[in-house]
Amino acid sequence: MYNPQLNSNGELTHLLSIEGLPRDVIVHILDTAASFMEVSAREVKKVPLLRGKSVFNLFFENSTRTRTTFEIAAKRLSADVINLDIGRSSTAKGETLLDTIDNLCAMHANLFVVRHASSGAPYLIAEHLTRVNRDIHVVNAGDGRHAHPTQGLLDMYTIRHYKQDFSNLRVAIVGDILHSRVARSDIHALTTLGVPEVRAIGPQTLLPGHLDKLGVHVYHDMAQGLKDCDVVIMLRLQNERMTGALLPSAGEYFRHFGLTPEKLALAKPDAIVLHPGPMNRGVEIHSAVADGPHAVILPQVTFGIAVRMAVMSIVAGN
Amino acid sequence: MYNPQLNSNGELTHLLSIEGLPRDVIVHILDTAASFMEVSAREVKKVPLLRGKSVFNLFFENSTRTRTTFEIAAKRLSADVINLDIGRSSTAKGETLLDTIDNLCAMHANLFVVRHASSGAPYLIAEHLTRVNRDIHVVNAGDGRHAHPTQGLLDMYTIRHYKQDFSNLRVAIVGDILHSRVARSDIHALTTLGVPEVRAIGPQTLLPGHLDKLGVHVYHDMAQGLKDCDVVIMLRLQNERMTGALLPSAGEYFRHFGLTPEKLALAKPDAIVLHPGPMNRGVEIHSAVADGPHAVILPQVTFGIAVRMAVMSIVAGN
Amino acid sequence: MYNPQLNSNGELTHLLSIEGLPRDVIVHILDTAASFMEVSAREVKKVPLLRGKSVFNLFFENSTRTRTTFEIAAKRLSADVINLDIGRSSTAKGETLLDTIDNLCAMHANLFVVRHASSGAPYLIAEHLTRVNRDIHVVNAGDGRHAHPTQGLLDMYTIRHYKQDFSNLRVAIVGDILHSRVARSDIHALTTLGVPEVRAIGPQTLLPGHLDKLGVHVYHDMAQGLKDCDVVIMLRLQNERMTGALLPSAGEYFRHFGLTPEKLALAKPDAIVLHPGPMNRGVEIHSAVADGPHAVILPQVTFGIAVRMAVMSIVAGN
Repeated sequence: MYNPQLNSNGELTHLLSIEGLPRDVIVHILDTAASFMEVSAREVKKVPLLRGKSVFNLFFENSTRTRTTFEIAAKRLSADVINLDIGRSSTAKGETLLDTIDNLCAMHANLFVVRHASSGAPYLIAEHLTRVNRDIHVVNAGDGRHAHPTQGLLDMYTIRHYKQDFSNLRVAIVGDILHSRVARSDIHALTTLGVPEVRAIGPQTLLPGHLDKLGVHVYHDMAQGLKDCDVVIMLRLQNERMTGALLPSAGEYFRHFGLTPEKLALAKPDAIVLHPGPMNRGVEIHSAVADGPHAVILPQVTFGIAVRMAVMSIVAGN
Repeated sequence: MYNPQLNSNGELTHLLSIEGLPRDVIVHILDTAASFMEVSAREVKKVPLLRGKSVFNLFFENSTRTRTTFEIAAKRLSADVINLDIGRSSTAKGETLLDTIDNLCAMHANLFVVRHASSGAPYLIAEHLTRVNRDIHVVNAGDGRHAHPTQGLLDMYTIRHYKQDFSNLRVAIVGDILHSRVARSDIHALTTLGVPEVRAIGPQTLLPGHLDKLGVHVYHDMAQGLKDCDVVIMLRLQNERMTGALLPSAGEYFRHFGLTPEKLALAKPDAIVLHPGPMNRGVEIHSAVADGPHAVILPQVTFGIAVRMAVMSIVAGN
Repeated sequence: MYNPQLNSNGELTHLLSIEGLPRDVIVHILDTAASFMEVSAREVKKVPLLRGKSVFNLFFENSTRTRTTFEIAAKRLSADVINLDIGRSSTAKGETLLDTIDNLCAMHANLFVVRHASSGAPYLIAEHLTRVNRDIHVVNAGDGRHAHPTQGLLDMYTIRHYKQDFSNLRVAIVGDILHSRVARSDIHALTTLGVPEVRAIGPQTLLPGHLDKLGVHVYHDMAQGLKDCDVVIMLRLQNERMTGALLPSAGEYFRHFGLTPEKLALAKPDAIVLHPGPMNRGVEIHSAVADGPHAVILPQVTFGIAVRMAVMSIVAGN
């Protein structure tokens, strides 16, 4: 099957989705990220791998946090970073997305980091670039409900860091899987890396219908779903869900699906807890868990910088 | 006549308008831009000409696209770039424009890139600087309906690139010339560089009254105006015009003044088509022309980076 | 008394407030700033003291001018600067302030420049960092009505530059002292540096009640208050005060407390006039004073860059 992420040598040229990425490409990204971990801990946190390259942050959907992580990663690679407040720019003037892209290409861009509310927008851009300029690369920083591949990759980095081996793990993903691009990316990554048991836990209204086809086991009860898990990935409950028809209330949600120390005690004693942030304390996670010994939520952020440096240097490095 | 753009040696110290620029100054900018064309094509797209200099983007009127081109150009010259979201800043607090400028001068600014909705604002700043600090420079990035000199210069670069010589050209400018600072800058540049025949094509309501005094031939009919032209410069139709009293409708405008392949066939077979962007496809230009072999719209963008690097390095370089 | 600004060796590790800073720490900052004055006057205005460090501008309250001065200072120290438009970011998504800070720490931040509408926010952050990461530093860029220490320090730098010695000065602070963090910072700095006579001048409604406990002499009459002063520090009258219940009108205010050449003539012949900007000409200060020979308002801005470079390099330098 045609995969616009890989060039004819099977090397990563865009990062659009974890779906369709071969295992060895994922492992290469994680290994490269490991080599960048010490850069961020240095006195001078810079390497010259993207020196003189132009990285454009194209955030059609606002996300200060994600944009910041990419901006830091690019600057630590010595790139020139240009943030485009795209909501107020040419698209608002009636220009088409691909005309905007063509213009930025003509400025000799090297890398586009794209966040978009519409699923598939980064694919559209990457396919267009494949026709017009093969030296310009795209990294998907989240598109609609579809994918958030760098989040998925940093979750895998985190799991590998604490558990070493994927081949004997039981991993639970908890919450609003239906609307979560993080969950989709994680499921594809976990499966590709050989995790034998992936579980999805959440209310019927927040789980998609096709999970069994992805090899995911579905639970509507936390006690059953968390039992003997090695890894628990909590999802953020979007504010708009809390008041919608899909849920009775935030309090009700917390009572059933919020991760408390009591519920976490059902997982393995050395279980780790992940969360993509920003957390809603008291909604999907209890503060005693968020700040407790099982949480690896802040290390995820640290690993996330290294993973984004790895992805950017692999697709666009000298 | 006093010209605040030139110092007492006749060298460019501010770029405010193409009107009043001697031919040799324009040619020097174009020649310098040519020398920068290879920088943007390098692996490491940087030269140290503005290293350690502070370039302030003062966009009193928002324009993400133009701001981006200046930011890239400044960063490729190794300058420190500070973007001021000036709409939300001190001016909103009742400070005068010149107090804001004096403050930024006191921070040891080197170069102001100024975009302003009021015609003449960059002149006001430049004249003030002439009195208080002759080491700080202004580049006009568009002021009201008055001038957009870097756009005019990149249009000249584009024409010279494709046609080599200005002395035997027939150039048509099409559209809303009345409200266009691009058109004004282009007309002055074309005349100064010796183009023998400059034409303006548009509806009566969108053409200014004094064009003949500038040596421009006026046409209200595309078939007559485009006949045997070497260069066609299309202007963007501002959205606010389309619904105003000046025009019947966008569709009607396109029927009479939109550039279609059929109309373009009346120009010379090797005619080139320019557009300052962002394009309104189906309003002032047909997609078959925008994407066709005569269009040089994306090369304009590439040349624009080199032209802005040239202007900034000439006025503020070490 | 515990002072989170100083480490166990008495060295500056955060700058939160001038209150509680020992005299020798203040003098060390001013001396360091003096050494940076020549950097901003160079052709290449950069030193590598923060090279590869990550400085985050966390402006919970918008202030383009103050943010710009810190951004320039950090870039001249060769830091990587990341501006967080924090109003639109994670805090808006319900994340707590300290979760936001923890996340940025996990990205290996080195320095937070914090502006916040709530008094004490930078203290809260600094105390948190003291627990979680002692290698990350905070500089208060203005918190509520509480403190604006870099403004206070640059005012001291300015006074020392023109008057050399603090021990024989009479200094008047004029205007809305009640709501002014600048006034509070100045009063603590002047007292610590040994100024024998500090005066506060303003209407009853705009002066706090405890000034005498700080050793400040209170005046409600400009003629009496300005008499024989060496230094006059004017405060900005916030727009919201002009229409509020605290003042009759801007015109009335100017008549009583606006600094005119006539009133200034009552001070010493070599008196200097400071203002933190942006000025309201014709409200708190007459243009003839603002632009006259006694004003040192623009030098304040220049010294402010050097002072901010000094503070940042002292707390976070290699």
